[in-house]
Amino acid sequence: MSWNSPSVVVVGTVAFDSIKTPFGERHRIVGGAGTYIGWSTSRLGVQSGLVSVIGEDFPQAELDSMKEAGMGLEGVACPEGGKSFYWSGSYHMDMNGRDTLATELNVLADFKPVIPEAWRKSRYVMLGNIDPTLQASVLDQMDERPELVVLDTMNFWMDIAIEPLKAVIARVDVLTINDEEARQLSGERSLIKAARSILNMGPRYLVIKKGEHGAFLFHVADGQVQYFFCPALPLEDVVDPTGAGDTFAGGFIGHIARRGSTDFETLKQGVVVGSALASFTCEEFGTDGIRSVSTGELEDRIDAFRRMTDWKPQLVGA
Amino acid sequence: MSWNSPSVVVVGTVAFDSIKTPFGERHRIVGGAGTYIGWSTSRLGVQSGLVSVIGEDFPQAELDSMKEAGMGLEGVACPEGGKSFYWSGSYHMDMNGRDTLATELNVLADFKPVIPEAWRKSRYVMLGNIDPTLQASVLDQMDERPELVVLDTMNFWMDIAIEPLKAVIARVDVLTINDEEARQLSGERSLIKAARSILNMGPRYLVIKKGEHGAFLFHVADGQVQYFFCPALPLEDVVDPTGAGDTFAGGFIGHIARRGSTDFETLKQGVVVGSALASFTCEEFGTDGIRSVSTGELEDRIDAFRRMTDWKPQLVGA
Repeated sequence: MSWNSPSVVVVGTVAFDSIKTPFGERHRIVGGAGTYIGWSTSRLGVQSGLVSVIGEDFPQAELDSMKEAGMGLEGVACPEGGKSFYWSGSYHMDMNGRDTLATELNVLADFKPVIPEAWRKSRYVMLGNIDPTLQASVLDQMDERPELVVLDTMNFWMDIAIEPLKAVIARVDVLTINDEEARQLSGERSLIKAARSILNMGPRYLVIKKGEHGAFLFHVADGQVQYFFCPALPLEDVVDPTGAGDTFAGGFIGHIARRGSTDFETLKQGVVVGSALASFTCEEFGTDGIRSVSTGELEDRIDAFRRMTDWKPQLVGA
Repeated sequence: MSWNSPSVVVVGTVAFDSIKTPFGERHRIVGGAGTYIGWSTSRLGVQSGLVSVIGEDFPQAELDSMKEAGMGLEGVACPEGGKSFYWSGSYHMDMNGRDTLATELNVLADFKPVIPEAWRKSRYVMLGNIDPTLQASVLDQMDERPELVVLDTMNFWMDIAIEPLKAVIARVDVLTINDEEARQLSGERSLIKAARSILNMGPRYLVIKKGEHGAFLFHVADGQVQYFFCPALPLEDVVDPTGAGDTFAGGFIGHIARRGSTDFETLKQGVVVGSALASFTCEEFGTDGIRSVSTGELEDRIDAFRRMTDWKPQLVGA
């Protein structure tokens, strides 16, 4: 696999974040959905191609590290005189909610994703959380229908752009959203009813992320809703959950790209691998938890998931 | 196993409940922790002996059904002229909280559990949610230390009787509480830190119930915290979650009593069996969901848990 042909094309922000959690605060550290997705796939030895935009204030050393880790940056625009997208947020004491303190779109305001010519035959596409019209424009630029397209989004786009969102959701294979977003999108309280409704909107698979409560993978086969559940690893401390969902998405599609299969068994593994990688992100501020994870550390953590979910069925009547 | 020697001695309320949920309401239906625990163990073919108190207003037909199902009632006092314990509650629209509308202690106010002589050698004891001094008095009456004692409790007793509660917790093998209660009891936000702290208070095992988000089983082996997680089955509709925690507890200890083992593997199965039985309780009002579950229906549901949690680990480096 050459640099010119990444395994996974990723659209998503590359940005600065200021974050406050009960464990401390960090000012203007590197963040963004595209960044986390790229670092996560890189831990699987999978090359990604980022389609994004940064300002001239974005540090070259960081770009060098990203390239070194296996991220192609030819799709990252850098308009002259521009400033990078900036987000600032503060997490509640119980970490189950957060307040946005500031959002400065900067270069993101005029962002039009352009996929480098050499990337347009990539088989795997990760549409990170961004304006659904931009997500659609990425799909439009692909030479042929990719093998698997995963789309991540959030309630913000359901509030202000539901029609463009529904239009792009209809074109993807996997949708990843959280439980409240699944309820909002479907109008159903029951997750299994929500899943059935959303799978009727087009995607073959639905991942419902529940944060510290794990993640569901839903799928319809022979008219029946099938589902797999992967818990979140209980951590000593959740220091900063920023980027955990993006890290999950990167590990999920990275595993699938690496295995070259899109069957239910492989997607189940993808949910576990994504959850394992996301657990590293939560343990440190920003990308500090994920960027240096070794293969051995990741395999140990996946084994912790195996132990946590392993049981021997025993017939009641036996 | 004769009627005189139940597999599991259960202390817990046998009572009336009035319940309102988004799916409807029921007035003065049969409820109580002891009732749900008894119905749950009965679905495993395990006989229980209930230690409780009822009023003269409790219907004989219900007592007959309970006996028929395998519950020994010689430990259920019925003071002359007494009225049964009564609780009334209303669930919030999202089912994640409820308000207590009325609590009438009635015969429960002067309840002193007395274990029938023939039951005092039972190997399994389930201390349902009740005043911790009463839970302790049940243990005091056993002729010898049972093989396994499970204690269920709630935040109410942590608020008003923390010292008697801690004293009885120190004497049991398994504590079952919900996640917020684990945080309150330990003073720790992280569930793994909370588990470590609580396992230092005496119990060998800790079950943390998270309702629709599943249940953890924690255990310390060789100084390391081990854990197992079982998700809750996603249901089409959660009609009435009243008694789900008690049903879980009954299935958990019932499975253990039936297998005659208290090792980690058997307790993991117990968590799944308890979760499967609890899912039936949630599907109908009161005990309607649990009381007629057949062995075949239960096995089908346990198989749904197997499918939901089954995945094939795949090495990252392979």
